[in-house]
Amino acid sequence: MNQYIEPEVLKGTRDFLPLDMAKRDFVMKHITSVFRSFGYDSVQTPAIEYAKTILGKYGEDSDKLIYRFKDNGGRDIALRYDQTVPFARLVAANFQNLPIPFKRYQVGNVWRGDRPAKGRYREFCQCDIDIIGTKNLLAEAEIAKVVYSVLARLGFPKFVIKFNSRRFLNSVLSDLKIAEEKQVAVIRILDKFDRIGLEGVEIELNKILSKETISALRRIINLEGSNSEKINSFKKYDTAEILQFLQLTKSLEIPECNLQFTPSLARGLDYYTGITFEVFIPGADIGAVCAGGRYDNLCELFTSENLSGVGVAFGFDRIVIAMEQLGMLKKIRLSSRVLITYFEAATLPASLEVFNELTSEKISAEIYFEPAPLKKQLKYADKKGIPFVIFLGEEEIRKQQVKIKFMDTGKEKVIPRDQISIYLKCFYEQTEK
Amino acid sequence: MNQYIEPEVLKGTRDFLPLDMAKRDFVMKHITSVFRSFGYDSVQTPAIEYAKTILGKYGEDSDKLIYRFKDNGGRDIALRYDQTVPFARLVAANFQNLPIPFKRYQVGNVWRGDRPAKGRYREFCQCDIDIIGTKNLLAEAEIAKVVYSVLARLGFPKFVIKFNSRRFLNSVLSDLKIAEEKQVAVIRILDKFDRIGLEGVEIELNKILSKETISALRRIINLEGSNSEKINSFKKYDTAEILQFLQLTKSLEIPECNLQFTPSLARGLDYYTGITFEVFIPGADIGAVCAGGRYDNLCELFTSENLSGVGVAFGFDRIVIAMEQLGMLKKIRLSSRVLITYFEAATLPASLEVFNELTSEKISAEIYFEPAPLKKQLKYADKKGIPFVIFLGEEEIRKQQVKIKFMDTGKEKVIPRDQISIYLKCFYEQTEK
Repeated sequence: MNQYIEPEVLKGTRDFLPLDMAKRDFVMKHITSVFRSFGYDSVQTPAIEYAKTILGKYGEDSDKLIYRFKDNGGRDIALRYDQTVPFARLVAANFQNLPIPFKRYQVGNVWRGDRPAKGRYREFCQCDIDIIGTKNLLAEAEIAKVVYSVLARLGFPKFVIKFNSRRFLNSVLSDLKIAEEKQVAVIRILDKFDRIGLEGVEIELNKILSKETISALRRIINLEGSNSEKINSFKKYDTAEILQFLQLTKSLEIPECNLQFTPSLARGLDYYTGITFEVFIPGADIGAVCAGGRYDNLCELFTSENLSGVGVAFGFDRIVIAMEQLGMLKKIRLSSRVLITYFEAATLPASLEVFNELTSEKISAEIYFEPAPLKKQLKYADKKGIPFVIFLGEEEIRKQQVKIKFMDTGKEKVIPRDQISIYLKCFYEQTEK
Repeated sequence: MNQYIEPEVLKGTRDFLPLDMAKRDFVMKHITSVFRSFGYDSVQTPAIEYAKTILGKYGEDSDKLIYRFKDNGGRDIALRYDQTVPFARLVAANFQNLPIPFKRYQVGNVWRGDRPAKGRYREFCQCDIDIIGTKNLLAEAEIAKVVYSVLARLGFPKFVIKFNSRRFLNSVLSDLKIAEEKQVAVIRILDKFDRIGLEGVEIELNKILSKETISALRRIINLEGSNSEKINSFKKYDTAEILQFLQLTKSLEIPECNLQFTPSLARGLDYYTGITFEVFIPGADIGAVCAGGRYDNLCELFTSENLSGVGVAFGFDRIVIAMEQLGMLKKIRLSSRVLITYFEAATLPASLEVFNELTSEKISAEIYFEPAPLKKQLKYADKKGIPFVIFLGEEEIRKQQVKIKFMDTGKEKVIPRDQISIYLKCFYEQTEK
């Protein structure tokens, strides 16, 4: 007996079957089309990099998650851990040839030896946009507009772009007399708000702050109300950046209901220096679907050019999961619209003529590959979700007709042979909507 | 002084800048759109696999080129070397849920620790189509039709799908009384025909065949003429498969000038069992851009299901190189069609209004991110190849006008503010053609 190799994938990695891919392609097509409509162009970096490029950029804990190995030439190699560091390397290497400010999007897989969980994989897809080389707040506002446009285009009925300002947060922490060396620790704890809740945050803060300070902080991060109500309550802090950001997003016609000033939002990463974002989908149980903000000096490890920027990463896998959860991907079908049946060699030439005509008219069609019983061919059409099946028997050929079976209803219709393309095209355009 | 990390990529890997990506995306979009129009659906497998899945499938020499390493859990891991073996694993794992025959396309990067050369990289993109689960020759003919349609759609003025039949070749070798154990060696030598020429092939054949046999073989593989002339000369050999294949490709309307029966074509890989293909672009110095054929029992290492199939791999990087060489990608631009200038805060709201209008009309537009001298903004537009620059100064705003500068000619035109979208749309559609 043969010993077969178990056809398994590594934990945290996935095969994508046709329907998975049809959904993913649909989502990706809309996302990148919005990026391009705002003038973002695509770049790509290799999946494998010198380890020196990747290591030491994300903190010690993250370094442990990086896939590393030696190649045959003894080079120390690492798999891409995110797209930001390789992007910084690309910008440093090509600075003279890039338009500055530089807007780009970048879609690619990254690898992390993390513990797999719901929405957390070892190989997953990131979609980033960044604008680098400008400090103007218009860049933050445009990034928010792109996020808004992507989620609106995908059809999410509700979503919230939560934002905060590092300048505001720093002014709060300074006003509360929290020593500068403690501020980073406090920000890291606040960043867990969405995962561990207010209570969890307070337990952790207890270890480093006094009860009074915590209670003052709670009043700030827990404040309810509209964006302008919050700003009015926080007049003693530095809200200039937030006011200007809201004014610009208003000019960019982002509805106020999609933007939420969130004083507790902290983004643990130390490198954010201005406005920060996190985006949530009410009703989807998946955490933030986008996150980002303003950072200083992206390329400082690679070049003396000082480039401030603002960017956001779209969690592509999470967006797909959220759309699945909300039933937004139910209408996605595979490519084929038409199956032409094949019963005998004698009728094949006529069938191939129809096949040629349909594919040249860009109606996605296929012909069954061998003579087979009707039941088998219908089962095939059913498994692929093909909506139309065409029969061309001797009788139809003689009468210059074709018979169409509508798989959704089971009904059949005979139409003249020379009307097949136009008929399917009309029907096809209707069902696509 | 700072010690910067050299922003270099590994040998054999590449960064793709915006214009590279625009070209690659253009080519990929056309390729996959043809695949889908023939009812091929996409699947994807992970880039990292258990080493046991990948090793030992391509021969010893290839095994040395596979990137292998241990992950933190001590698992023996390999990077994807091609897409066929992981596809076989995917089919074995999901057999019950797949429509059979199964048609799919698969686009992804593969990694090979090969010596980098022109058109040969360590990380490169493969585009495969396969039909598995049918032995009917219609499958071979359809694969040829898809290859034809892809290359025609991309606009190649000339290309040749060279094909041969393993059955024909075996009947020739048997007729020449070449012992079966030598036939594989002879096929491997014939496979080098395109690289080392007839002379090189004869030198190698000299080591294993007699002068008379070589001379007889030369007359066969060197025969000139049309497909039918060749077939007529080869009546004593088994040409049944070739005749039927040509009949089917004729029914599928593949022009005969694009199909060339090539008795020397051998495809070194041992697993081809029927029709084999290699595709060349006259005038492009890049070797075969597609290759494939009929194979038996794709999944035999993973399952007892016996699945014969036929497939072809498109060398995506080579196709892009060939199109570059033939000047077919000169018209490709970046995304942005319009730059809206930004000179002062007072005119910003009016500029943002235009920006909102254009992007919502799906005219790819951007606004310069900060007040800057005209020269700087025009240089930016020039570097990105943006064809239209819009000026909205105080005067234009007062008169409800906008001024457009056409970057290709340097000319300017003032038009009413409320006609901007429709004006650009018309112009835009013209210039896209």
